[in-house]
Amino acid sequence: MRMVDLINKKKEGKALSKDEIEFIVSGYVKGSIPDYQMSAFLMTVYFKGMNRAEISNLTLSYVNSGNTVDLSGIKGIKVDKHSSGGVGDKISLIVIPLVAAVGVPVAKMSGRGMGHTGGTIDKLEAIEGFNTNLDYNTFIDNVNKYKMAITGQTANLTPADKKTYALRDVTGSVDSIPLIASSIMSKKIAAGADAIVLDVKVGSGAFMKSLDNAKELAETMVAIGKALNRKTIAIITNMNEPLGHEIGNANEVREAMEVLKGNGAEDETTVALTIAAYMVLLGGAFKDFDSAYEKLKDIIKSGKAIEKFKEFIKIQGGDTEIIDKPDKLPNSKYHVEIKAKESGYIEAIKADNIGVAAMLLGAGRRTKDDKIDFAAGITVVKKYGDRVNEGDAVFILHTNMGNCTEAKNIVETSFKIGKEKPEAIKYIYEIIK
Amino acid sequence: MRMVDLINKKKEGKALSKDEIEFIVSGYVKGSIPDYQMSAFLMTVYFKGMNRAEISNLTLSYVNSGNTVDLSGIKGIKVDKHSSGGVGDKISLIVIPLVAAVGVPVAKMSGRGMGHTGGTIDKLEAIEGFNTNLDYNTFIDNVNKYKMAITGQTANLTPADKKTYALRDVTGSVDSIPLIASSIMSKKIAAGADAIVLDVKVGSGAFMKSLDNAKELAETMVAIGKALNRKTIAIITNMNEPLGHEIGNANEVREAMEVLKGNGAEDETTVALTIAAYMVLLGGAFKDFDSAYEKLKDIIKSGKAIEKFKEFIKIQGGDTEIIDKPDKLPNSKYHVEIKAKESGYIEAIKADNIGVAAMLLGAGRRTKDDKIDFAAGITVVKKYGDRVNEGDAVFILHTNMGNCTEAKNIVETSFKIGKEKPEAIKYIYEIIK
Repeated sequence: MRMVDLINKKKEGKALSKDEIEFIVSGYVKGSIPDYQMSAFLMTVYFKGMNRAEISNLTLSYVNSGNTVDLSGIKGIKVDKHSSGGVGDKISLIVIPLVAAVGVPVAKMSGRGMGHTGGTIDKLEAIEGFNTNLDYNTFIDNVNKYKMAITGQTANLTPADKKTYALRDVTGSVDSIPLIASSIMSKKIAAGADAIVLDVKVGSGAFMKSLDNAKELAETMVAIGKALNRKTIAIITNMNEPLGHEIGNANEVREAMEVLKGNGAEDETTVALTIAAYMVLLGGAFKDFDSAYEKLKDIIKSGKAIEKFKEFIKIQGGDTEIIDKPDKLPNSKYHVEIKAKESGYIEAIKADNIGVAAMLLGAGRRTKDDKIDFAAGITVVKKYGDRVNEGDAVFILHTNMGNCTEAKNIVETSFKIGKEKPEAIKYIYEIIK
Repeated sequence: MRMVDLINKKKEGKALSKDEIEFIVSGYVKGSIPDYQMSAFLMTVYFKGMNRAEISNLTLSYVNSGNTVDLSGIKGIKVDKHSSGGVGDKISLIVIPLVAAVGVPVAKMSGRGMGHTGGTIDKLEAIEGFNTNLDYNTFIDNVNKYKMAITGQTANLTPADKKTYALRDVTGSVDSIPLIASSIMSKKIAAGADAIVLDVKVGSGAFMKSLDNAKELAETMVAIGKALNRKTIAIITNMNEPLGHEIGNANEVREAMEVLKGNGAEDETTVALTIAAYMVLLGGAFKDFDSAYEKLKDIIKSGKAIEKFKEFIKIQGGDTEIIDKPDKLPNSKYHVEIKAKESGYIEAIKADNIGVAAMLLGAGRRTKDDKIDFAAGITVVKKYGDRVNEGDAVFILHTNMGNCTEAKNIVETSFKIGKEKPEAIKYIYEIIK
């Protein structure tokens, strides 16, 4: 087999066999296929696509390129959750205790990543003492005992995907659905998931800007799950404005607790409950979605949800006092209000810009070596459709930087006030199973 | 400027500016742009194409990446000729003395290359003593005095194209018309041509298999010529069977002499006269094509053409006795006839296969280090449309190898005999100016 022949085969729009895909992926990891052939191949995939069988085989080759996490010591169906990424997305913080509260195990492995804010483990580290570095046995034991645990990803999972992603990033083939889908699914499968709930976000603050693209990505990932025997459901959710009111690390923990206490924003609460309901459904705890959803609502209402979150903090070594005293979480020195210059209704928010502003304030990493400021972030005071009067605070920037002009300028030009109340938007567009 | 942004710009189908193209080409030669980004870019060009301005700028960047040959010491308009490559293509051997005979200077720089046979200078080296390594001053002087000279290419011309071509070859982006056109034109321009006649071959023995593709390539190259102020004409010629009767090195010299003596095959003579006529037209020696063509026919008929070839050999130090005694050229030990197994008409010849067989017999190089056997080659006894009787020799393989089973098997399965005389074919499809 010669790599150049496989590039040409794909160029002609022909499907590659399982062996051919394995040859490419393993050759690339070993170094027998050089970067310059792989980048040409990836660009060819960008233009010619891959069929479902090819995408599943690519996913499998990624999984087989490294270690996989053995979760067989955990009783029950291990359901994992993935988000394609958005601004103010703190859903994982909410669903871990919710799902665990009904007895479905959540064994969460999480990376740090770069972006508007830190990843889930960064956010949890805003809680004093919270240990995101559990050894394997403690991790498994905690899941069996408390139905939940989280740890940073340390094992050498899907190295082929990591190497390929780094190459795609500098050669213009990031935005290819077959490559995105296999990358996401391989990580979840290597991390030991039996079933997967995917939150595919669409809109100005998401990677997928159009519903058609989001649907295609969702359908592709669900098909991979089916092909590789992992029950998979994708939920397409709105990311045209930040989720909830808070963007940052400490303030996202604060808002997650509000949701778990029953005081959450409507969009955030709805999306979190929907995802948690599908997780417990796939986990086998319920027969249908509606009863799962209702039960989870009850768990919030009864106070069990926030109790479970307190337990979560406790078993990971964190300071549980924050449950009743959220102000014990890091706070920033400065709070800068961005005010409405006219009266009317919030008609549009450029969620991606707001995310970038949060990063500039210190909430996220621009490069791997950046340090996160847990206290930094943005509060979205007024959301889409909200009435505002001239002079009202629409956003509050939280920062420890004396000068935040750049972030301020971005936020000031990233929302629009209209005269009429705009049409209501959907929080959830579609469920793909 | 970041290379990844330029890749993405091209991916979106946008045109790159002159500066952007220069950034890519010069960066790639310097090494500041790595192979893996260049290969992704080239694949993007394969899929999204380039407009005429981009292709001209790419050509110019290739030219500017290295040295250019200074032909200003030669009086008159220097007309160069290029063939996109075919089997049995010995047109250059014929047109050099023809064009020189009417006083238009031919300053030919030629590479060796790989393929079915050697390049033009390899073929001429089949003539004992023929020196293809003239120093610059002798080269210029000879052109001024005799209107013709040939030398091997030694200057560092278009290094960016060389490096890019080597990458395209292993990453599947060879067959991109913008990349082919700019590669060819940059070499001709760097070699100092004022005007260029392009022989774009189409058919089973050519790189371009369809007339549409050949036309697109021809039009693209003519447009580059126009943009860069080089008068350029492209002639689209038939390469569905080998040109003339001979494939090899010594036997192609023999056949070129037959054409110059007036005894050439019809296809070869027509194509050679047409190309030569356009060359002398661009060279300013004639006002119209027809009078140029007639004059060149006369030159052959009168014996002046073969005389001029004799002079060509003489000034390059070769043995002029071959003019009257062609058998002094290298001959092979073995001559293997491939016979017709039935009677009828030659209906099809797979020219590319016949070329490969010639290479296997020793006429061409498979790798740069292969040595050419001047005596090896193939005689096409029967051409398309010819009547054959069972047992007639259709091809003769000339070889010094005791065993030529592989070549024999290829040739035996690379022609077809039909019952009916097939329709006549055109030698020249179209002229693009």
